[in-house]
Amino acid sequence: MKPLIVLKIGGNVIDNPPVLETVLRDFAAWENPKILVHGGGKIASKLMEQLGIAPKMVEGRRITDRETLDIVTMVYAGLINKNMVAILQSYGCNAIGLTGADANLIPAAKRPVKDIDYGYVGDVNTGCIASNTLANLVNSGLVPVIAPITHDGNGSLLNTNADTIASCVAVALAKTFSVQLTFCFEKKGVLRDPNDDQSVIVFLDELSYKQYKNEGVITAGMIPKLDNAFAALHSGVTEVRICSPEGLNAGTRIRVS
Amino acid sequence: MKPLIVLKIGGNVIDNPPVLETVLRDFAAWENPKILVHGGGKIASKLMEQLGIAPKMVEGRRITDRETLDIVTMVYAGLINKNMVAILQSYGCNAIGLTGADANLIPAAKRPVKDIDYGYVGDVNTGCIASNTLANLVNSGLVPVIAPITHDGNGSLLNTNADTIASCVAVALAKTFSVQLTFCFEKKGVLRDPNDDQSVIVFLDELSYKQYKNEGVITAGMIPKLDNAFAALHSGVTEVRICSPEGLNAGTRIRVS
Repeated sequence: MKPLIVLKIGGNVIDNPPVLETVLRDFAAWENPKILVHGGGKIASKLMEQLGIAPKMVEGRRITDRETLDIVTMVYAGLINKNMVAILQSYGCNAIGLTGADANLIPAAKRPVKDIDYGYVGDVNTGCIASNTLANLVNSGLVPVIAPITHDGNGSLLNTNADTIASCVAVALAKTFSVQLTFCFEKKGVLRDPNDDQSVIVFLDELSYKQYKNEGVITAGMIPKLDNAFAALHSGVTEVRICSPEGLNAGTRIRVS
Repeated sequence: MKPLIVLKIGGNVIDNPPVLETVLRDFAAWENPKILVHGGGKIASKLMEQLGIAPKMVEGRRITDRETLDIVTMVYAGLINKNMVAILQSYGCNAIGLTGADANLIPAAKRPVKDIDYGYVGDVNTGCIASNTLANLVNSGLVPVIAPITHDGNGSLLNTNADTIASCVAVALAKTFSVQLTFCFEKKGVLRDPNDDQSVIVFLDELSYKQYKNEGVITAGMIPKLDNAFAALHSGVTEVRICSPEGLNAGTRIRVS
């Protein structure tokens, strides 16, 4: 199968213009078919502050009410997405900026209200991702740049976690491509010693992951990330990579075995 | 050649949610391949006001400085574009929201400074429109929804007149399709008597246009619109239509002869 890279970048990249330019230049230079998924960064919070809209929190979790949905739609799908597309185009990369609503790429369901009403937050219907449409766009030489907004099919947009979108897109395309899913992260990779940036674990498989956990080398914050990585691998993704913005081709490579 | 409809809607539609819903429902119902081009409406001005940004005017013309460009990018390419896509999707229309930067669809040049520096305003390079990419999207069953933002190829987005984008896209696709270009307008069409909404001229060709002008029936505001319509017809567009949001299939049909 043809290789495909899905790169996820988050606030640590987006909020830092020189770092963002470096990442986009390196991404543009990759010859393989590729997809970029981006998060939001601090720009949405800053705009809310400027507009005097207080973040709505319930039990410490952020709620996406109507006003907040409009702000994240403007910032994620408009400002951030289209500026990244323009920069990628200037590097000769034929980027096309999309949300999950466009071409019905990523149908989602408004998160059901249990204890907390999260508002306009979408849970992705993984099985419903329009993987053929995405594959056709990629095969025609385009480079999708996906903002973390989905829709419910009834006319409403939904705010959706960008890590989840990246994983779901990678899994959906694993039917057609050999997918490498890369998470761009504040550290150089998974570290043996969280205080030593040079202690990157260059390769992790399921066995070594268990050993590192048993030895207490991999702890706390990394475990959910790595559990998600292995879940993607078990759903058909070929390789997950965790790296820093400065080393997109380095970091920790993760495979089932 | 296969028919294709390019529909342009402006502020009079976008600023009126029930009218917008009607137009989008009628647009979704058209069976022919189609493209929607939208303007901005008053939402961008309202957001600027809320943020305390005064519109920059020089000799009565609006200037797009850096702050204004960010606002129109958020509002046109984010809020308006993506909400319209979500509504169209709910009507079963496979909309894909795009700007001229996406897939390098509409390359433009920053307007040269003569007497006035318009700032980040783009003049479309008509000959450079990626008509093959657009045709491929349309032929694959997608319905492009185009926001009036282009790019300069050097990493900067540009604010661009939506009427111009609609005309240029219609002309560029006239190589491949028999294009009908429809401008949705506040009146029911070109009127014999501007005070009588029932006096729609249902068909105009070049000869009758000249006669109406000579007789003083068509005057002032309509002349530049109609001159642009005939320019599009002379560049290959099959038919131009001017109609109201309530009568997308009625109004004034304009052909060369």
